[in-house]
Amino acid sequence: MKRSVSFQGELGAFSQVAAMSLAGEEATPVPLPAFQDVFESVVNGKCDAAVIPIENTLHGSIHENYDHLLRFDLVIRGETFVRIVHNLIAPPGVRFSAVRRIYSHPVALNQCRHFLEANPGCQKIPFYDTAGSVKMVIEEGLKDAAAIASGTAAEIYGAKILKKSIEDDRANYTRFFLLERPGNVAPEAPIQTNKYKTSVVFTVKNVPGALFKCLSAFALRDLNMTKIESRPLRGKPWEYLFYLDFLGHVEDKASRNALNHLGELADMLRVLGCYPAAR
Amino acid sequence: MKRSVSFQGELGAFSQVAAMSLAGEEATPVPLPAFQDVFESVVNGKCDAAVIPIENTLHGSIHENYDHLLRFDLVIRGETFVRIVHNLIAPPGVRFSAVRRIYSHPVALNQCRHFLEANPGCQKIPFYDTAGSVKMVIEEGLKDAAAIASGTAAEIYGAKILKKSIEDDRANYTRFFLLERPGNVAPEAPIQTNKYKTSVVFTVKNVPGALFKCLSAFALRDLNMTKIESRPLRGKPWEYLFYLDFLGHVEDKASRNALNHLGELADMLRVLGCYPAAR
Repeated sequence: MKRSVSFQGELGAFSQVAAMSLAGEEATPVPLPAFQDVFESVVNGKCDAAVIPIENTLHGSIHENYDHLLRFDLVIRGETFVRIVHNLIAPPGVRFSAVRRIYSHPVALNQCRHFLEANPGCQKIPFYDTAGSVKMVIEEGLKDAAAIASGTAAEIYGAKILKKSIEDDRANYTRFFLLERPGNVAPEAPIQTNKYKTSVVFTVKNVPGALFKCLSAFALRDLNMTKIESRPLRGKPWEYLFYLDFLGHVEDKASRNALNHLGELADMLRVLGCYPAAR
Repeated sequence: MKRSVSFQGELGAFSQVAAMSLAGEEATPVPLPAFQDVFESVVNGKCDAAVIPIENTLHGSIHENYDHLLRFDLVIRGETFVRIVHNLIAPPGVRFSAVRRIYSHPVALNQCRHFLEANPGCQKIPFYDTAGSVKMVIEEGLKDAAAIASGTAAEIYGAKILKKSIEDDRANYTRFFLLERPGNVAPEAPIQTNKYKTSVVFTVKNVPGALFKCLSAFALRDLNMTKIESRPLRGKPWEYLFYLDFLGHVEDKASRNALNHLGELADMLRVLGCYPAAR
């Protein structure tokens, strides 16, 4: 049976590009309106997996999803980096010279500012979704409009790419997680620990040096921390949760010792997942 | 001459409550549409100071303002915590039983979910600003509408508070910074170092243990770090800037040594300000 993978947005969203890369091209994509729906679809068994964006190199972390990772009992089974390439996309037969209106999500419009400033004859119109704007210009059969979205969106809706890669900054990547329900997964042997990442969330005692001591669990074992993110702790003003990623496999001795050590130092510790590191 | 203090939002915004507390009741509040306008108003000398929100205990950091702190050459001269108390506010003469529509910013509507669910006869309508929604129901003289905003907004627009403190979670605080142009400020003597906070931003070398070593500059001197926030480094995918606050005065020996030590370890280091710690 084909696996189903949920993601937030319309068919053709950048999350679908990530979902196909993480779950395989043969998986069935399931677009849902909100991130919470995406998490719930896997918790309640309607979908086999979910793909969510977790951080972007221009905008930073997607905090709503960090909060959902803590709230829902799912595990991270994979990560991927997708370069965000924005294209100007129109219904077949519409030429660039005919375009007077350009629809897209406000963030995408903002990321193509140079292109839009160079084409002042085109009105930019904010829309709820990048792929959704392609769907709309096609369904409405607009003759003077285009959308900004992924190449995948152009393919899915049978639209034409008028201009490729119109984003201002090419160093625009989004990191996505593949999530599944918890369960035993046989570790592939032999484990090359530096090919894996482990993600954890923890809280520290509110005393001087507490975070420093927690990081020592990794630094003293030469484990490479790749990301740390703080989030407010609900109900405890000015105290924080820390989300931390490091290169290492949970079955590996140094990683296991580091997690035991962190467990001694932290007030709360949860392993969110261990997965092959992207790139 | 009276000092002018800019903030984002309409008159009566929670930022104005913070501005009056930080700059004094006699200061002239200057409402502006966007955070960038607020920073620019002080850089270009149109205002004497600015007040910006930097983090909230429910939602976390306001990242746009962390990015502006790096971009604009202003210094942090004060901080305050404001408890976010939402009130149901209507034009004079409008009774609660007559209210069919409730306007406010989506975040405020979301923070009063229990109240709104208990009153299903009232339609909730998203608006661009909390104080702006009070301004609108007053200006339009609506007979069946109310707004959710601060008590200050009710005072300013001559509206009436129908229900006080309707927010779901009372542990909802926002931390604000007072910003001014850089310049010499005589340190008040004697300095009680633990009554001050210092804020810095730095980047680390991309090697294992780099952040751990940077935090050692504070931990080895028993300086209490109160906040750390990571932000993506533009143009260097998956590398980060760190914003860090600690209890200490820059003129104090331990703090000075810690900053010198951090300067040795960090690739880039900037002191954003030293100011009396709130509470």
